[in-house]
Amino acid sequence: MKVSFKNDYSEGCHPRILDALTKTNLEQQNGYGLDEYCVSASNLIRNKCGSPLSKVHFVSGGTQANLLVISAALKPFESVIAATTGHIYTNEAGAIEATGHKVNTIATEDGKLTVDHITAILDGHQNTPHVVKPKMVYISNATEIGTIYSKKELQSLYKYCNANALYLFMDGARLGSGLMASTSDLSLADVAKYTDVFWLGGTKNGALIGEAIVINNADIQSDFEFHLKQKGAMLSKGRLLGIQFNELLKDDLFFDLARHANLQAMKLKEALTAKGHSFLSETHTNQIFPILPNTTIDELSENFDFHIWKKINDSSSAIRLIASWATTDAQVASFVEALKRV
Amino acid sequence: MKVSFKNDYSEGCHPRILDALTKTNLEQQNGYGLDEYCVSASNLIRNKCGSPLSKVHFVSGGTQANLLVISAALKPFESVIAATTGHIYTNEAGAIEATGHKVNTIATEDGKLTVDHITAILDGHQNTPHVVKPKMVYISNATEIGTIYSKKELQSLYKYCNANALYLFMDGARLGSGLMASTSDLSLADVAKYTDVFWLGGTKNGALIGEAIVINNADIQSDFEFHLKQKGAMLSKGRLLGIQFNELLKDDLFFDLARHANLQAMKLKEALTAKGHSFLSETHTNQIFPILPNTTIDELSENFDFHIWKKINDSSSAIRLIASWATTDAQVASFVEALKRV
Amino acid sequence: MKVSFKNDYSEGCHPRILDALTKTNLEQQNGYGLDEYCVSASNLIRNKCGSPLSKVHFVSGGTQANLLVISAALKPFESVIAATTGHIYTNEAGAIEATGHKVNTIATEDGKLTVDHITAILDGHQNTPHVVKPKMVYISNATEIGTIYSKKELQSLYKYCNANALYLFMDGARLGSGLMASTSDLSLADVAKYTDVFWLGGTKNGALIGEAIVINNADIQSDFEFHLKQKGAMLSKGRLLGIQFNELLKDDLFFDLARHANLQAMKLKEALTAKGHSFLSETHTNQIFPILPNTTIDELSENFDFHIWKKINDSSSAIRLIASWATTDAQVASFVEALKRV
Amino acid sequence: MKVSFKNDYSEGCHPRILDALTKTNLEQQNGYGLDEYCVSASNLIRNKCGSPLSKVHFVSGGTQANLLVISAALKPFESVIAATTGHIYTNEAGAIEATGHKVNTIATEDGKLTVDHITAILDGHQNTPHVVKPKMVYISNATEIGTIYSKKELQSLYKYCNANALYLFMDGARLGSGLMASTSDLSLADVAKYTDVFWLGGTKNGALIGEAIVINNADIQSDFEFHLKQKGAMLSKGRLLGIQFNELLKDDLFFDLARHANLQAMKLKEALTAKGHSFLSETHTNQIFPILPNTTIDELSENFDFHIWKKINDSSSAIRLIASWATTDAQVASFVEALKRV
Repeated sequence: MKVSFKNDYSEGCHPRILDALTKTNLEQQNGYGLDEYCVSASNLIRNKCGSPLSKVHFVSGGTQANLLVISAALKPFESVIAATTGHIYTNEAGAIEATGHKVNTIATEDGKLTVDHITAILDGHQNTPHVVKPKMVYISNATEIGTIYSKKELQSLYKYCNANALYLFMDGARLGSGLMASTSDLSLADVAKYTDVFWLGGTKNGALIGEAIVINNADIQSDFEFHLKQKGAMLSKGRLLGIQFNELLKDDLFFDLARHANLQAMKLKEALTAKGHSFLSETHTNQIFPILPNTTIDELSENFDFHIWKKINDSSSAIRLIASWATTDAQVASFVEALKRV
Repeated sequence: MKVSFKNDYSEGCHPRILDALTKTNLEQQNGYGLDEYCVSASNLIRNKCGSPLSKVHFVSGGTQANLLVISAALKPFESVIAATTGHIYTNEAGAIEATGHKVNTIATEDGKLTVDHITAILDGHQNTPHVVKPKMVYISNATEIGTIYSKKELQSLYKYCNANALYLFMDGARLGSGLMASTSDLSLADVAKYTDVFWLGGTKNGALIGEAIVINNADIQSDFEFHLKQKGAMLSKGRLLGIQFNELLKDDLFFDLARHANLQAMKLKEALTAKGHSFLSETHTNQIFPILPNTTIDELSENFDFHIWKKINDSSSAIRLIASWATTDAQVASFVEALKRV
Repeated sequence: MKVSFKNDYSEGCHPRILDALTKTNLEQQNGYGLDEYCVSASNLIRNKCGSPLSKVHFVSGGTQANLLVISAALKPFESVIAATTGHIYTNEAGAIEATGHKVNTIATEDGKLTVDHITAILDGHQNTPHVVKPKMVYISNATEIGTIYSKKELQSLYKYCNANALYLFMDGARLGSGLMASTSDLSLADVAKYTDVFWLGGTKNGALIGEAIVINNADIQSDFEFHLKQKGAMLSKGRLLGIQFNELLKDDLFFDLARHANLQAMKLKEALTAKGHSFLSETHTNQIFPILPNTTIDELSENFDFHIWKKINDSSSAIRLIASWATTDAQVASFVEALKRV
Repeated sequence: MKVSFKNDYSEGCHPRILDALTKTNLEQQNGYGLDEYCVSASNLIRNKCGSPLSKVHFVSGGTQANLLVISAALKPFESVIAATTGHIYTNEAGAIEATGHKVNTIATEDGKLTVDHITAILDGHQNTPHVVKPKMVYISNATEIGTIYSKKELQSLYKYCNANALYLFMDGARLGSGLMASTSDLSLADVAKYTDVFWLGGTKNGALIGEAIVINNADIQSDFEFHLKQKGAMLSKGRLLGIQFNELLKDDLFFDLARHANLQAMKLKEALTAKGHSFLSETHTNQIFPILPNTTIDELSENFDFHIWKKINDSSSAIRLIASWATTDAQVASFVEALKRV
């Protein structure tokens, strides 16, 4: 049986979550997110965000969170700006366009949008009403290629968005990992302060399933429940999501799990660096993209599962290795050993 | 603390499901429904359906299942026929219309569509291309008001649909309960044989979350994964759904839970009948709709939660009582006692 | 060659429109509705409406006008209320649903909505967010069956809509005919005053093509050009529409043509009444719906084209006869003669 | 009054069209494109295309034609490939995305797609079902920047599309101009033979309004009328479109007008070349893109209207000059004179 570094959703959930589900199992609770646990988890999130007026909704997955937020916030002729590497542009099977909205993209060096990128897109959309009207900026933190935004970068984007009547939306599929990166100077409260809406990813951070959408801007808050229901995202047993986020956030479990994942990834990075390999991007989160000779990749593939990310040249490629909350020291050690043997 | 007969999703899940989740928790599995448990559960369903060529997909909720099936099957100008009581028409916040499709409705006596109903709608849609083209018939079993289709009725609908190039689609949110009704002569294999597509509801029948869409007609099967992904319905940890359905269907647990729910509802019905009350509809499933004096309703409300369904006259109303897989004998007994005391 | 009373768009346009098109043909004008004639026609409409702040947009057809107004005004989860005979519900091939919005319908006696009808629908949509949110009321004047709203009726609807945060939208495909009915006490200014948005139909009232959307409520006005462009409704040679409406409205041509159509229909009505026939509805506009023996219908069909509207019983049916701005005295006389000969 | 070279839709229509409209004005014809003139014009087009099985539909504008063809041909998860300069990507206010479909784009040198471009996009869409499925290739001829496809280029694209289950769709807003370019070796019959669907632009080639969609592939033909109706594109007085195309195509008027427009543009090109100016792209159609000093642009602007297309550097820009069927020798001469005087 191979050890998998393919992604951060290969295992189930942290055992404390199973315990919490078991302990509360026969309680009778209201449906549709009106149960005690959803209420409690929402409060925990607002507290940790220092954002008492934010509204919180729990949904079952990331593409669902993205399409909900974007289609709820935009009018039919409005569009969302993203990096060409943005998940909504590359890996959601046209989910955003299926709700009627265009994604305006621009190439970036490191998966991160800057004010200059956004300005360039706005400049290209002056010929109204023959063009769409960009109204939202979509960023991911950590990004799809493992990089992160600094506090200054996020502040700068938010300030620009405010000045230009754009919403700033952060996809937080790996927000735990992003915030816990050793190089990050962002707090969860900063994210709440410098975005209009974001989501906190549970699926890739120790939950069985679930993401928490946090809406800070009142314009996007109103009537969000209708969107949830209409898009098939409102679970009748919403308790399933509430109980998990309650458990993850009632202490620091959520952040501890992210820190663990990052740490395991950094051990892999260290071993690869020691062996002299370079990386596609400089990351401090739970994803690394080492560039390896194809022969090395073949050898490692015998005992490990991972994603081949990109061909570099005829003899080498970048691979993606992901560590998760569940990655054990033994799994990391076995990879490091295997690498030494190559 | 009141006892709730409000719905069949007030509790968590059957303990065997929690055990299965716990036992498999740290296994590394593929994402997106490609794990061993989804494969195994799909096979179990095909076997129980006697339908080896059907395709099975697991999703997180009923509205999601309905909007996926309907929007995947229909071209933009095609519509779906439903009873005015149909869930897709009344209680899904316009989810079907949001995918671009009209729901053609007709009033029924008991929540069940007949060939005559469908014929009437087809007759009203001859002025092409100025009208939509009805292409699918949506039924629920059990229906939203607890009634069920007989084998002969289902055969008759299916034959008519085939002859008129219509797909027959059964919403199975409460299919377990429908099939296990003492008056039902339908098997799961009959449902697979006499529909083009249906879904088997887990959420209301002992699962934490999840419904299994079973596609029998090859025209609707192709490319369904794209629709799942695009609508935000493809879970990265699809194992969560596979493990549950595997557990429910590897023996008769799924059906046992439904039979239990029906039985508890019938005990309530018996007590109400003994007390001389009549019912809005004649049901043998886990939902009953007794007509009670408002004073009785008020008294019962002190200790029990339930839905007031419909005003009958100034002094009496119909209420809805639902029993579930988790409804205990003690809960039923307390209601029967309370009724006696009225 | 049969004479056609099938509809009011069988001929081209009033000769003055052809003259205006010819006279202006080689002028160079701006595109996209920014030409002098669109500007001038908009001003004429605002003046006749006594509504200087209204915004006017010209589009090519009625279904286009309806889907534009409704989809521009509503959020994704909002719906529009209509009579079951409403054109948007019966004869637009699901155009409204294709933009994502549900049409809530209710049966009426005469094609006209009342406050009671609307209240009934609102009452049925209290279970938020599981139901759509009705936000607009759609009426037609004249209605699809030739009846008209009185001033008092319109005021009453508008007042109710205002009090209940609903937009009132009037489809004016046959607004000219409606306003010019001998029994009408409504003026164009009344329509502008007591609706949030309406459109003035040109196609059925002497234009080659074109309808004028008049938006009175500022909430619906903003960014409407984007909707026009996005839905493919913005003509590059918008002058075509401007020149026509300018010609129709620079004096009373628009109203004269409608009065003529009504008059011709009333002559037909008089002859049918004299012959002892009854009517499906009492109309004073350019549509009449006489109930005739099938043998009479067969005989008339030899020389006249018309629509068989509805089977009444085995031996008689209602037909629809429509007169237009172009219906000549000779055509009417030939029908009256034919009727006498039956 | 300035002379406008801003676009090819500044004037009305060719006088023969006004004559035809006038002559047929009082004929009673069927509605919705079922009149004699639509039938006759469809036949003329099929004959000129040498494509007796093609289906022809007339619509009122180009964005409407594009959104109709694309949304009718694609399933929800399918996308359309276009150059980044493609009209559907840049200048239709998100009309394609509003129907739910993604536009996959790639940068080109001259506005023209090649097999290599398409292959690159297909290569980037292998990770099914997480990506959209490209299913159609959209090209324009002449392109948005005035270039044209050779017969060999079109054959090559069509062969590749066939081999890869892609539809090839040509936007023919300026197809007349494209075919009549002195450098073109394509005939209308070639276009019909080597595309699955295309449209023949009337609005920019002497019609008042209207484009003719020609569907060659039977898969896209079926039920197209429903799409027309549902999108608000089916005119009740469809005769308006039929009469125009009948007039344009009953002899060579359509092609003569295009040839005239090209000729006038080439005269402008010659004068600019003589003056030593270069061009943004090498065109032989009715659009030219000279690069001029900003001081020259300012001077010319005093007497001429045109579009400033692109900043080249601080002291010069490219402008767009368009000639049309209506551009007179005097207008051209006045520009040439003005240029000499600069």
